[in-house]
Amino acid sequence: MNIVVWNEYRHEKINQDVARIYPEGIHNVIAEYLRKENMIVGTATLDEDEHGLTDELLDKTDVLIWWGHKAHDEVQDAIIEKVYQRVLNGMGLIVLHSGHFSKIFKKLMGTSCDLKWRQAGEMERLWVTNPSHPIAEGITEYIELEQEEMYGEFFDIPEPESIVFLSWFAGGEVFRSGCTYTRGKGKIFYFRPGHETYPTYHNGQIMKVIANAARWAYSPKGSKLIFGKTEPLNLY
Amino acid sequence: MNIVVWNEYRHEKINQDVARIYPEGIHNVIAEYLRKENMIVGTATLDEDEHGLTDELLDKTDVLIWWGHKAHDEVQDAIIEKVYQRVLNGMGLIVLHSGHFSKIFKKLMGTSCDLKWRQAGEMERLWVTNPSHPIAEGITEYIELEQEEMYGEFFDIPEPESIVFLSWFAGGEVFRSGCTYTRGKGKIFYFRPGHETYPTYHNGQIMKVIANAARWAYSPKGSKLIFGKTEPLNLY
Amino acid sequence: MNIVVWNEYRHEKINQDVARIYPEGIHNVIAEYLRKENMIVGTATLDEDEHGLTDELLDKTDVLIWWGHKAHDEVQDAIIEKVYQRVLNGMGLIVLHSGHFSKIFKKLMGTSCDLKWRQAGEMERLWVTNPSHPIAEGITEYIELEQEEMYGEFFDIPEPESIVFLSWFAGGEVFRSGCTYTRGKGKIFYFRPGHETYPTYHNGQIMKVIANAARWAYSPKGSKLIFGKTEPLNLY
Amino acid sequence: MNIVVWNEYRHEKINQDVARIYPEGIHNVIAEYLRKENMIVGTATLDEDEHGLTDELLDKTDVLIWWGHKAHDEVQDAIIEKVYQRVLNGMGLIVLHSGHFSKIFKKLMGTSCDLKWRQAGEMERLWVTNPSHPIAEGITEYIELEQEEMYGEFFDIPEPESIVFLSWFAGGEVFRSGCTYTRGKGKIFYFRPGHETYPTYHNGQIMKVIANAARWAYSPKGSKLIFGKTEPLNLY
Repeated sequence: MNIVVWNEYRHEKINQDVARIYPEGIHNVIAEYLRKENMIVGTATLDEDEHGLTDELLDKTDVLIWWGHKAHDEVQDAIIEKVYQRVLNGMGLIVLHSGHFSKIFKKLMGTSCDLKWRQAGEMERLWVTNPSHPIAEGITEYIELEQEEMYGEFFDIPEPESIVFLSWFAGGEVFRSGCTYTRGKGKIFYFRPGHETYPTYHNGQIMKVIANAARWAYSPKGSKLIFGKTEPLNLY
Repeated sequence: MNIVVWNEYRHEKINQDVARIYPEGIHNVIAEYLRKENMIVGTATLDEDEHGLTDELLDKTDVLIWWGHKAHDEVQDAIIEKVYQRVLNGMGLIVLHSGHFSKIFKKLMGTSCDLKWRQAGEMERLWVTNPSHPIAEGITEYIELEQEEMYGEFFDIPEPESIVFLSWFAGGEVFRSGCTYTRGKGKIFYFRPGHETYPTYHNGQIMKVIANAARWAYSPKGSKLIFGKTEPLNLY
Repeated sequence: MNIVVWNEYRHEKINQDVARIYPEGIHNVIAEYLRKENMIVGTATLDEDEHGLTDELLDKTDVLIWWGHKAHDEVQDAIIEKVYQRVLNGMGLIVLHSGHFSKIFKKLMGTSCDLKWRQAGEMERLWVTNPSHPIAEGITEYIELEQEEMYGEFFDIPEPESIVFLSWFAGGEVFRSGCTYTRGKGKIFYFRPGHETYPTYHNGQIMKVIANAARWAYSPKGSKLIFGKTEPLNLY
Repeated sequence: MNIVVWNEYRHEKINQDVARIYPEGIHNVIAEYLRKENMIVGTATLDEDEHGLTDELLDKTDVLIWWGHKAHDEVQDAIIEKVYQRVLNGMGLIVLHSGHFSKIFKKLMGTSCDLKWRQAGEMERLWVTNPSHPIAEGITEYIELEQEEMYGEFFDIPEPESIVFLSWFAGGEVFRSGCTYTRGKGKIFYFRPGHETYPTYHNGQIMKVIANAARWAYSPKGSKLIFGKTEPLNLY
């Protein structure tokens, strides 16, 4: 299983608070955890050539993990188109936190993906609402994060195939925080937590969810989908 | 549109706090509101003959609303079977609050319908998560109830067809509070709020949801479903 | 209820077989039927200015019906963007037949919307799989079309919220022919039949489905969705 | 992974046509295939004590496969209740063919599970409609069965979480043939083919689907679900 963690990797370079939590970047913290789970993990970042997402890399990627925030617009449409085609052809995609506004997520959802938000360091509690879903494996009733950014409903997404987590926020909001989708042959998981100024990706439960999701989103590529003009199979 | 509001109608007779809020019973408060919405509304209660649910009444009922709590076991299986058959044949069903544990709801869901709970008079806020669903019509972002019983996840129900409301509770829980289902030709809506010791059914927004749900759950009976042995339509 | 029927309106002008069936264009046949159902119906076509979809028209359109086939690429992106925003804000959209490959449908679905096809004038039978769905109201077990183009699975669409019709084709294929979605506040219905060389839109059952779908897809615009930065509702 | 194949095992003893195809019973053909897939497989049949479904056996069963037809009514309610509780607690369940009318399937679905049928040895073609679902792994576009019993829509089941297969029948019907559900922590798959007078379970593709389904339906039991009275997690 080949995983690639893509990170915008800008906050970490210019914001000391973020750099303190993720000195090597969010992508490397996630990659390291997944390697311990026996996955083969590469990374790619916005400021690399082709944002690091070369054909060579994408061709062998089973699951792509995406973290972006302030530079969604700088991601080239041509790269997004390549990622999009790969998802339809079976590459898994895990979209984290502010990736809800990434070009790739909006293109796959067909909605604005807009939401309410508040950056106030309040408590988030993620309740498991589909306890036997593979993504919730090993998670007990809920995950508690002492401090997170708030995301609140209405979250403008298509009705998820499954809602694995629902978040409670101290300030009074709720949020569909763990949502699964299929697009073409590709499996997609949106997972809410992970604001850059909090140590969310150092939380073992959060990382277990991401590892579970990577395993779930992986699918053997299988046979090629057949479209187009076709002869009748039965006489009439 | 013929509506019947069924109520266990026990708390109101023995608990003075409840009697003060619902002197004529929860059913009559709901019925009165719906009549103002131009629906024809009858009522039925547990201690009547056949729990008030005679064939004559059921045969002309388009939507049945159900409130029960402490006497689920006293409802006769034969009556439940009749209600069940009518739901499959197109009668709408709205199950309120503690009705989650009613025989009819469990039979239609196929699960335990169990949940967490706490009776502590805390704030509940119901967020709209499907803003263009007919059941949410006229409801702005959320409904706030100063005091309610808490119901928390995991709520053991089948994945709803649509989740119209998600609840936030002051004590830290979330809940899928407005859930739609189809069983046979019948439309079902589960709506969480309505503990007997709080004036929830005097809240205009809550009642608007119930009226919306009654309209949504109504369906013209249409043609009879055809099952069983059948001749081929095409030669082969 | 204000309906607009949009039609590419090219086949009718250059193909005599099509012109014989739809001398005034597919859009006018559909529009005329809906007017008899007491809807206010306008039309718009590709070769008009702004494809006929002016702001003035769109602003008062409750439901847009879309038929296109050979000229999807000629529809300007700026017009599609306007239609897309209106759907998210609550305008209903009914996509007919070869509209599965229209820019607007692909943008809202987030998939390729590809499928198998065969133009061989074979029988199609559309089976009702959700008999109490408002879109199936008044339709008995199935609709039979003597001659239609075949569309076959795999149809690359997101898992529908409801599948109202499944098609059987004489040549051996099946197809999810009536699919509902919600995007933002907009309700979307894809309805398969309607190849231009067959008199499908002169079939009363097919037209009943389209009229039902228009009623279902209509939603009162309701309150504006609220997104963005927000203050806490509860103290913590 | 411990699998148990339950079979009514009556037809095989009294009908020579069936006995010729399944001399040791349907259960043993299925069990043998799954053993080659490295699963630990036991069997149980109606006429054994407790229908072969002792507590000892059920306690170690990860996935139960169910084939029944003419003797659904002879299955004791107490045994069904035990199976039901285990499904809610995470035991997978695969219901085959005429098992659609079994007590356990109807109890878990909450509907009549009725359908149309015809025993005329016609061709069935099962089209894959969710190509990256684990249950469809290794199956190309469709599975063709030269002769099968026909099951036709309307099939009175709750809207499936995923429809993995849709069937086409030569006589003109379609059917939702591969349907997934979750009930409590248990995963359920209904798979249509398998009339006793045809060699369907000797078909390698059909058996691959059943093996895939067994793997998919397996879930680590995980932590116990917590229900009931609960203390607040946050102060208010």
